[in-house]
Amino acid sequence: MHASDKTDVLVSEVGPRDGLQSLKRAMPTADKNRWIAALAKAGLREIEVGSFVSPKALPQMSDCAEVVAHALTIAGLRVAVLVPNLKYAQMAFEAGAHLITIPVSVSEPHSISNIRKTHNEIIEDVRAIVALRNERYRGTAIEAGLATAFGCTIQGPVPEDDVLRMAVTMAEAGVDMVNLADTVGYANPVQVRRLFGRVREAIGELCGGAHFHNTRGQGLANVVAALDAGVRTFDSSQGGIGGCPYAPGATGNIVTEDLVFLLEAMGLRTGVDLDALMTARAVLTASLPGEPIYGHVPDAGLPKGFVPAEQRLS
Amino acid sequence: MHASDKTDVLVSEVGPRDGLQSLKRAMPTADKNRWIAALAKAGLREIEVGSFVSPKALPQMSDCAEVVAHALTIAGLRVAVLVPNLKYAQMAFEAGAHLITIPVSVSEPHSISNIRKTHNEIIEDVRAIVALRNERYRGTAIEAGLATAFGCTIQGPVPEDDVLRMAVTMAEAGVDMVNLADTVGYANPVQVRRLFGRVREAIGELCGGAHFHNTRGQGLANVVAALDAGVRTFDSSQGGIGGCPYAPGATGNIVTEDLVFLLEAMGLRTGVDLDALMTARAVLTASLPGEPIYGHVPDAGLPKGFVPAEQRLS
Repeated sequence: MHASDKTDVLVSEVGPRDGLQSLKRAMPTADKNRWIAALAKAGLREIEVGSFVSPKALPQMSDCAEVVAHALTIAGLRVAVLVPNLKYAQMAFEAGAHLITIPVSVSEPHSISNIRKTHNEIIEDVRAIVALRNERYRGTAIEAGLATAFGCTIQGPVPEDDVLRMAVTMAEAGVDMVNLADTVGYANPVQVRRLFGRVREAIGELCGGAHFHNTRGQGLANVVAALDAGVRTFDSSQGGIGGCPYAPGATGNIVTEDLVFLLEAMGLRTGVDLDALMTARAVLTASLPGEPIYGHVPDAGLPKGFVPAEQRLS
Repeated sequence: MHASDKTDVLVSEVGPRDGLQSLKRAMPTADKNRWIAALAKAGLREIEVGSFVSPKALPQMSDCAEVVAHALTIAGLRVAVLVPNLKYAQMAFEAGAHLITIPVSVSEPHSISNIRKTHNEIIEDVRAIVALRNERYRGTAIEAGLATAFGCTIQGPVPEDDVLRMAVTMAEAGVDMVNLADTVGYANPVQVRRLFGRVREAIGELCGGAHFHNTRGQGLANVVAALDAGVRTFDSSQGGIGGCPYAPGATGNIVTEDLVFLLEAMGLRTGVDLDALMTARAVLTASLPGEPIYGHVPDAGLPKGFVPAEQRLS
């Protein structure tokens, strides 16, 4: 039985990008393609399949164009990539990605450490990327991912007013969506509720999804708070692989398997089939022997008599 | 500097009972005493130090009277124990425990598997324990811990009306507090909010704390929901040790370190000092070499510039 097209929450899988780029070794291209296909088959409708970045800095991502080309053959899949600047954005446009995310650190020291750009430089870049898109690639959506929106390992606390200001700047620069990212696992539910509320007040429907890391075990608690604040898109990575290679100690996206279970248990339809998600997990673990792959639900299994949200409604 | 006596949330440490009883090996009595003293020194004001149970069934708990006697010498500490029936309740009263918890499974099959009692039998027992307390041990509080309140590995889903009925029965039997326990890690935040709301409506201030397991990684997400429903007492175990030896797959209380971090980050005063909690953790790990000890915050450390709730208020 196919899941209904109607879903309540979009789970945006970032494992093939955020997960794989933080590992020392590279997953072979054929394995990436197999894994992405399995993820899509499980019902994940948006997958960040890689990043267009310097192959010297992140050789794990050097096959991004090939991976995008394969992902574009999967019906119904929204193919997302990350790009750090205009040059790589152009490559992403050329490759035909449906969505590009530009990481914009609210903490300037993190921005310099992560993509070697000051605030003024990255803002200029975003404007140039939007201009190029508007001129030649109108089919591609642009998302600004506000990194370190909840705190920074270099700067420490990040003032909420700085996040608001950057969100407004991005909206004015013409991006289609502004996400808030807890790049280093500093967020707490009170802060999540308040900050998403304020950003939504400031930029309305351009206020997009949440990208949480589980560094301090608070990821799903923050999801509950974000849901309260009206957030309906969440990034996660299968097996919780990932982190930020330039932010020490910032290991691990929230785990897709545990997130999907949380949402479905709460009665929110994700369109994701948990059994098929385990099949995709097997593809991941087979390709990365010895690598730590996280997740409580895969270990514990589903509760006895568990009914996914979709089936409860019908 | 000592934490203020004013706290917003009570973290009730259950590691020395729920944690240790699920391990095959026994922690030596002197180590238990050292660990409990270190936990109390970290600011934990209520600790479930053991259970009075058959030493054949749970030899790890056979030194409970000694551990209680030592714990009673710690100023300001509320000494809690678990008891399965009248005979062991009497031992707990005699030992001078401040609080006894009686596990009452809402799922009758779990009750039979866990303490070999039908509902009628355990209800009779609770009445007898309350009568004995009222007659001779008025200084001891009695708590009914409604096990499997959110679902059961044997029965599957547990109807909320069954939980309500048992909560009312316990209130009428004269207990001082009714806790809800997610014994096997089945709870979700929507259910937690609704069920705590309904129980509070039914029995008012007798509706007590939440006992969550992290079996499916949902523990802290459920804490956020319980806070919304007005819950202000949470059980947890240091290092996340613990589980239910009679419910297969039900491993792991929520982790005290991660819970305290969550609450303090949310601006809720726990009275617990996170550095001193790490000192207690060192006592635990030293005593149980090779045993898995969990927790994200101990691995990742505190965020740069983190300020506990107490210091933000002053």
